Amino acid sequence: MEFIDLDKTASYAKLVSHALKAYSFDYAKLDAGRVARCLIPAGGGLMYSWAAKAVDEPEIKLLAALANEQELIGKYHMLLDGEYMNTGEKRRVLHHLLRGRLGKPVIHEGKNLEEFYAGELERIAAFAEKVLGGELKGGSGKTFTTVVQIGIGGSDLGPRALYLALENWAAGRKKMDAKFISNVDPDDAAQILSSLELDRTLFILVSKSGTTQETLANELFVKGKLKKAGLDPAKHLVAVTSETSPLARNPAYLDSFYMDDFIGGRYSSSSPVGGVVLSLAFGPQSFKELLEGAHEADRLALESDITKNASLLDALIGLWERNCMGYPATAVLPYSQALSRFPAHLQQLDMESNGKRVNRNGAPIAYATGPLVFGEPGTNGQHSFYQFLHQGTDIVPLEFIGFLESQRGEDVEVEGSTSQTKLKANLAAQILAFARGQSVDRTKDANCNKEFPGGRPSSLIYGKKVEPRSLGALLAHFENKVMFQGFLWNINSFDQEGVQLGKALAKKILASKGSSGDSALDAYAKLLSIC
Amino acid sequence: MEFIDLDKTASYAKLVSHALKAYSFDYAKLDAGRVARCLIPAGGGLMYSWAAKAVDEPEIKLLAALANEQELIGKYHMLLDGEYMNTGEKRRVLHHLLRGRLGKPVIHEGKNLEEFYAGELERIAAFAEKVLGGELKGGSGKTFTTVVQIGIGGSDLGPRALYLALENWAAGRKKMDAKFISNVDPDDAAQILSSLELDRTLFILVSKSGTTQETLANELFVKGKLKKAGLDPAKHLVAVTSETSPLARNPAYLDSFYMDDFIGGRYSSSSPVGGVVLSLAFGPQSFKELLEGAHEADRLALESDITKNASLLDALIGLWERNCMGYPATAVLPYSQALSRFPAHLQQLDMESNGKRVNRNGAPIAYATGPLVFGEPGTNGQHSFYQFLHQGTDIVPLEFIGFLESQRGEDVEVEGSTSQTKLKANLAAQILAFARGQSVDRTKDANCNKEFPGGRPSSLIYGKKVEPRSLGALLAHFENKVMFQGFLWNINSFDQEGVQLGKALAKKILASKGSSGDSALDAYAKLLSIC
Repeated sequence: MEFIDLDKTASYAKLVSHALKAYSFDYAKLDAGRVARCLIPAGGGLMYSWAAKAVDEPEIKLLAALANEQELIGKYHMLLDGEYMNTGEKRRVLHHLLRGRLGKPVIHEGKNLEEFYAGELERIAAFAEKVLGGELKGGSGKTFTTVVQIGIGGSDLGPRALYLALENWAAGRKKMDAKFISNVDPDDAAQILSSLELDRTLFILVSKSGTTQETLANELFVKGKLKKAGLDPAKHLVAVTSETSPLARNPAYLDSFYMDDFIGGRYSSSSPVGGVVLSLAFGPQSFKELLEGAHEADRLALESDITKNASLLDALIGLWERNCMGYPATAVLPYSQALSRFPAHLQQLDMESNGKRVNRNGAPIAYATGPLVFGEPGTNGQHSFYQFLHQGTDIVPLEFIGFLESQRGEDVEVEGSTSQTKLKANLAAQILAFARGQSVDRTKDANCNKEFPGGRPSSLIYGKKVEPRSLGALLAHFENKVMFQGFLWNINSFDQEGVQLGKALAKKILASKGSSGDSALDAYAKLLSIC
Repeated sequence: MEFIDLDKTASYAKLVSHALKAYSFDYAKLDAGRVARCLIPAGGGLMYSWAAKAVDEPEIKLLAALANEQELIGKYHMLLDGEYMNTGEKRRVLHHLLRGRLGKPVIHEGKNLEEFYAGELERIAAFAEKVLGGELKGGSGKTFTTVVQIGIGGSDLGPRALYLALENWAAGRKKMDAKFISNVDPDDAAQILSSLELDRTLFILVSKSGTTQETLANELFVKGKLKKAGLDPAKHLVAVTSETSPLARNPAYLDSFYMDDFIGGRYSSSSPVGGVVLSLAFGPQSFKELLEGAHEADRLALESDITKNASLLDALIGLWERNCMGYPATAVLPYSQALSRFPAHLQQLDMESNGKRVNRNGAPIAYATGPLVFGEPGTNGQHSFYQFLHQGTDIVPLEFIGFLESQRGEDVEVEGSTSQTKLKANLAAQILAFARGQSVDRTKDANCNKEFPGGRPSSLIYGKKVEPRSLGALLAHFENKVMFQGFLWNINSFDQEGVQLGKALAKKILASKGSSGDSALDAYAKLLSIC
């Protein structure tokens, strides 16, 4: 297998020259036939529609050649087989294995990791059943009704987004309420704790390394509150960590669940990081269904025909937009309130994975990598930043997400349509409005304010309903898209060296008490009354 | 007063030629002296620090010339005096007047609008006192404990962001809980309503026109629930609208509070749109303090020396970054959990105001206007998209926001520092890390993964604590920044024509029942089972 920088490939040169010379896309092509033709199953009952993306046969052909030259499917196989794809950190990348095996058995230091991950999943299920069945109780002998996850970044955004996504789906049969404490801002923990019955609350401390500054500070905050309430913290805390961390097998916790260094934070929603909280909130079976949906998407991602592989095509079109069209950002627009924080998770997933400027061997690269990712649910966004998307001076490619049915099924009919129908009609309308725009006859009206340039490409992922299986597939779709793009750019999508410098400087400020030897650092510390 | 496109001004030509030829900024200049020098009061106790922005005397001089040539302060005066600055819609722009008068008296059709706005504010205060004092009760005779705002876009994002910002500040003395229903997704309303005691809930229906599709659908949803619970909706709903809307003086509501067409949705947090819900949640006095903080910032924005006018300088540096440096986006990074949704409000404020492609007279323009705006609170973002900000291939200018003290004052000390101190140390550290980066000796280490290019400009707005006065100033700072940028680009920052096309198409889909005559529209409608 060869690892080549994008700009060293023959296919990329052809793509760029095509983009510069011959490229144009006529949105008049967007008709019923194209909508029916440009549809790919994405797992979990989801479909990926790329009809409103501005690529056609010539571009697809060039992108297929690039996929082939960069051996994307081969590299995915390498990853599935447990190769050390996280090059800088010399780690395997095994979040797919959490959902089921698609490659060779992965044996690490004598341990079969498929069995290890599956074993933890079973332990979580058994633990959840004990909590939910009332067998395991808090320090004052009461059953647990609320679970609070303490974690930040990957230990927070993914699990939180998934929890919020399923809350309404589980309405009336939710097992436990879940809350999340993440920020080191002490108001975050203080506010969450003020709303709880502590004696009925189980806390999950999540830190792979067991050294995350924010999470340890919040743990102490929580422990202080528990003690003050006369409760034994060891009866109210479980840990999710790696077996080598100081939190592992520690009597300070009721129990501990493990992942390892091969599960990156932003890819850890399928691991105990997401598993414990989601199994407690919705029952272990729901979490298993979520993993099944993800596994299905993982399997579909093995298809080598790019027109039949949703995450692969999504990745390639994204590269076309980023590197050939020069668009710097992508908006994720779920028409579903359940997915209110899903864009925040994708923001981390994508920007932390592919916001890189060196290749997988650490050599600087000369082309754009991962885009800026942002988004809010529709229709809300329509009343906010869509003005910019429709009539701003930049083009932002869009990823719409929609569902046929609401989760609760409660609805109201106004002017002949339900709210769910209105939601979907708005979604469909936006795709067309962005694609085609609206022209004004400038000979009749010199005012161009009602002119929409159109030419704003979008994709659509849709499914029947937000439920564990479709949600798992949605999660995996984007993970796999990001992975394929990392392979295309020849970068390491699995480290995050860019977070280190700030951490080190923060420690320096805290240790120096205002005399770090750096006058600007000390001046800011003084402005902010740090020392 | 002349209104000239940016690229027709002499100063802009000079700026661009300076950027192309002579520009460089050496971050070694960022020392204690510069930090002390580059500080401007921003109202409400806030300070604006631009020390880590990549501009120096030559750029400031050129920007001052542009501010002068585009007569920014003069145009602000025109706006304050009630001129019709919303050109396309032929409306005045009067959100400043909600906070106090800084220009001539504004008389519209015989009505003194300062008095009208102040009168509504008094009516709101009296109404809130009646509700909070228990004089006004729900349909079943119980006092109100919860208020739910039904609105979308400007009727939702600003008030919601402000409510969340003050919740912890008011801990222990909050008057009422507030919740928000916005999305037409029926799960949004259904979920909020399932968590309420309906007989103790007061709903605020917010729609200036009284015709917003989402809001009217949600109103009906709520009314249905109230009736089902045996409650008279007219005893549980108040309206915030314009006097000419169908909601005005309508017996279907307990009371109505008014703004007018001169208060744009995204600028309406200082109007009854924010006033009713915030006065109920925190008491009328808190809302008045918020307005006072905003008024103070508005007054400071009148200063013509750009080095003494925080919002003006912020606007000008933003233009430098957008039009001379070519940066397409700006990140807003509040180091305060209280401001968790403040970036979402700013996203609307900025992108809906300045995401425009024609000038104020409707003629197409040939330069970039408003940037993409996004953000999440720190330190959370550090564990998410900061990788991209530090080591991605694009530069994104940053706006940090921080506070010396937490709101609740509850904290914990770990390893010699409190969480609040850690939060601030991280903020200071990030400013320096982004500015200066970190080099590696490439002769010794070919791996550049630990290299940080730096050169990422940032500003910092900081204050003592998030409280009504500082929050009001923060809100107004950004409103005024956006206004000045609109003047610079010679666009109309006060309309939102870009939202119309999608609305019209959605109506077409709903009316056509699957046979709109547009095959693509019908095909999407079919995919989504709309008809």
